[in-house]
Amino acid sequence: MNARDTTPPGNTDMSDPKRHYVRPLDVKHGRVDMGHGAGGRAAAQLIRDIFLAAFDNPYLRQGDDGALLPAPGPGRLVMATDAHVVSPLFFPGGDLGCLSVHGTINDVAMMGARPLYLSASFILEEGFALAELQRIVQSMARAAQEAGVPIVTGDTKVVEKGKGDGLFISTTGVGVVPDGVALSGAHARVGDAVLLSGTIGDHGVAVLSQRESLSFGTSVVSDTAALHTLVDALLRAAPGALRTLRDPTRGGLATTLNEIAQQSSVGIRLDEAQIPIAAQVEAACELLGLDPLYVANEGKLIAICAPEAADTLLATLRAHPLGARAARIGTVTQDAHHFVQMNTRFGGKRVVDWLSGEQLPRIC
Amino acid sequence: MNARDTTPPGNTDMSDPKRHYVRPLDVKHGRVDMGHGAGGRAAAQLIRDIFLAAFDNPYLRQGDDGALLPAPGPGRLVMATDAHVVSPLFFPGGDLGCLSVHGTINDVAMMGARPLYLSASFILEEGFALAELQRIVQSMARAAQEAGVPIVTGDTKVVEKGKGDGLFISTTGVGVVPDGVALSGAHARVGDAVLLSGTIGDHGVAVLSQRESLSFGTSVVSDTAALHTLVDALLRAAPGALRTLRDPTRGGLATTLNEIAQQSSVGIRLDEAQIPIAAQVEAACELLGLDPLYVANEGKLIAICAPEAADTLLATLRAHPLGARAARIGTVTQDAHHFVQMNTRFGGKRVVDWLSGEQLPRIC
Repeated sequence: MNARDTTPPGNTDMSDPKRHYVRPLDVKHGRVDMGHGAGGRAAAQLIRDIFLAAFDNPYLRQGDDGALLPAPGPGRLVMATDAHVVSPLFFPGGDLGCLSVHGTINDVAMMGARPLYLSASFILEEGFALAELQRIVQSMARAAQEAGVPIVTGDTKVVEKGKGDGLFISTTGVGVVPDGVALSGAHARVGDAVLLSGTIGDHGVAVLSQRESLSFGTSVVSDTAALHTLVDALLRAAPGALRTLRDPTRGGLATTLNEIAQQSSVGIRLDEAQIPIAAQVEAACELLGLDPLYVANEGKLIAICAPEAADTLLATLRAHPLGARAARIGTVTQDAHHFVQMNTRFGGKRVVDWLSGEQLPRIC
Repeated sequence: MNARDTTPPGNTDMSDPKRHYVRPLDVKHGRVDMGHGAGGRAAAQLIRDIFLAAFDNPYLRQGDDGALLPAPGPGRLVMATDAHVVSPLFFPGGDLGCLSVHGTINDVAMMGARPLYLSASFILEEGFALAELQRIVQSMARAAQEAGVPIVTGDTKVVEKGKGDGLFISTTGVGVVPDGVALSGAHARVGDAVLLSGTIGDHGVAVLSQRESLSFGTSVVSDTAALHTLVDALLRAAPGALRTLRDPTRGGLATTLNEIAQQSSVGIRLDEAQIPIAAQVEAACELLGLDPLYVANEGKLIAICAPEAADTLLATLRAHPLGARAARIGTVTQDAHHFVQMNTRFGGKRVVDWLSGEQLPRIC
């Protein structure tokens, strides 16, 4: 398309009523086309009618290339980012939209930071239904609003049909860490208690239950949730006693604990009988041949803390709606090999190793 | 894969030498597989050998879910994000990697901010050559290092073959705006001068020259570059006189000026004879039936400033290697319709309208 051809030289007639006519966006039946990503009038319309309409806030309304935000005040910054490629886009308990908000808020919160702002970038596949896009964007907006963390800037690109998969969303979060808070996967110490905020495997099983190739009946719903208020409660309950917070997403509890063991140069001993798991999740995992220890969660956290604070922090977790089924699941040990080991329910012991490759692709 | 099957209960033999054996990453011949995105050992290896090896810095080395960064000091924050889906991945003068760094640094800089940190999320297609990934990641690392803006945190996901297109990169930048600086597309005033830092259309033509369907011979190279030092020079040269900075990327000079005209509720009058364009770019655009005013740039900026500062700022631009061909290309006018109009080289006038749809898909 040559813009010169459509506006012949010398045409400065301001009275032509068709000049500024843009066909309204047909959200109900319309589909994403390449023009929606090209930065012209169609792109501006998509952004206004779908994205701005849902995310509306003063920062986005500035309409510049980036968002100008107030000085964050004292405290160190935290920055975290996640690409979200979950398939299918909708699953029991959530969808790509709220997941992309919760996932990044949680990464910021696990650093002990108060999440302040989110950015979002969207990679749309040509032909994707605008109605589905709107549903996902509205779910994102709701999640951001409920969490009190606005989406302040964004970007949208479109790729040809067959070069994407409906929609991918990358989100980045910025937060501020209060002075005195110092959490890291590298801070676990021998003797520390390992707490878990609730049942494992719900998210992974909920997503899998919707896969065309698997599709099985279950009432399991994803645990996708923003955990920053839970983190705030923990930080208030026992300041200084928390060493590590981590949300066991992709790769599940087992992978996350192995990461912490390696980062902190310690071992971890788990007590299988203490690890909360819903009966339905356990049944689904047996059916699918999955180990729930490796199945993704999107609304759970692992807290490693000084042993003397374990009871207080466990009570704090249980007093919060997102931590009702919290448990003390293990202890940090001395181990030159940095193994995660588990006392099984049947009185045995086993190593809970890293997975070498994939267990569940595109779970988040 | 069931991890329980591979580590039978009771196996706590620490002496097995194969336990921790991981086949080294074959960067030369290897390809991305689904396991590289699953959060297990293969993912950890990919991150260590490709991403950490290239981006190495103390923030990334923390190894947590996010990066813990120093307090940014006084000043307002800026946050900007971009998804990068350029096709092909390599083009004369650059590639997806350096583009994804430059693009986001520029968005931060156009707000008058000093860029401090970048995050990056990668969506890889199964089967993508690790050698190409490494080349792109190294180009990104080089661009970040040259700009002095570290990539402090990241995320990697893998999608099945046919559900992506090699590699997409989303980057987010955070910066700080010095007190007293207030730039926005909404700040242009009637009578202001419109400056442009150099020739238009280079990036778009360079990318197009590599498209399989078009492939034509040209020596045009992309102008992809980080513009923050140029912005810094402008801010020092005439503090207070700058109203708007904007990089005319997707949609080109015409689209960006239309956005500014609309945001500021003004008109803009361009002088075509003053708009710098390389002869080869002009020739390529004629051949392809493209209007160079709408072709993407990745290393140019538009500066709108008080007229009395125009000469000083133009000299400042020209004194910088990235602004050598800077020109004063127009004036902000009063116009209730917010039109961008142009005095053509042949003495006529024409409206430089918004594009309604796409001109060039996947140009950045």
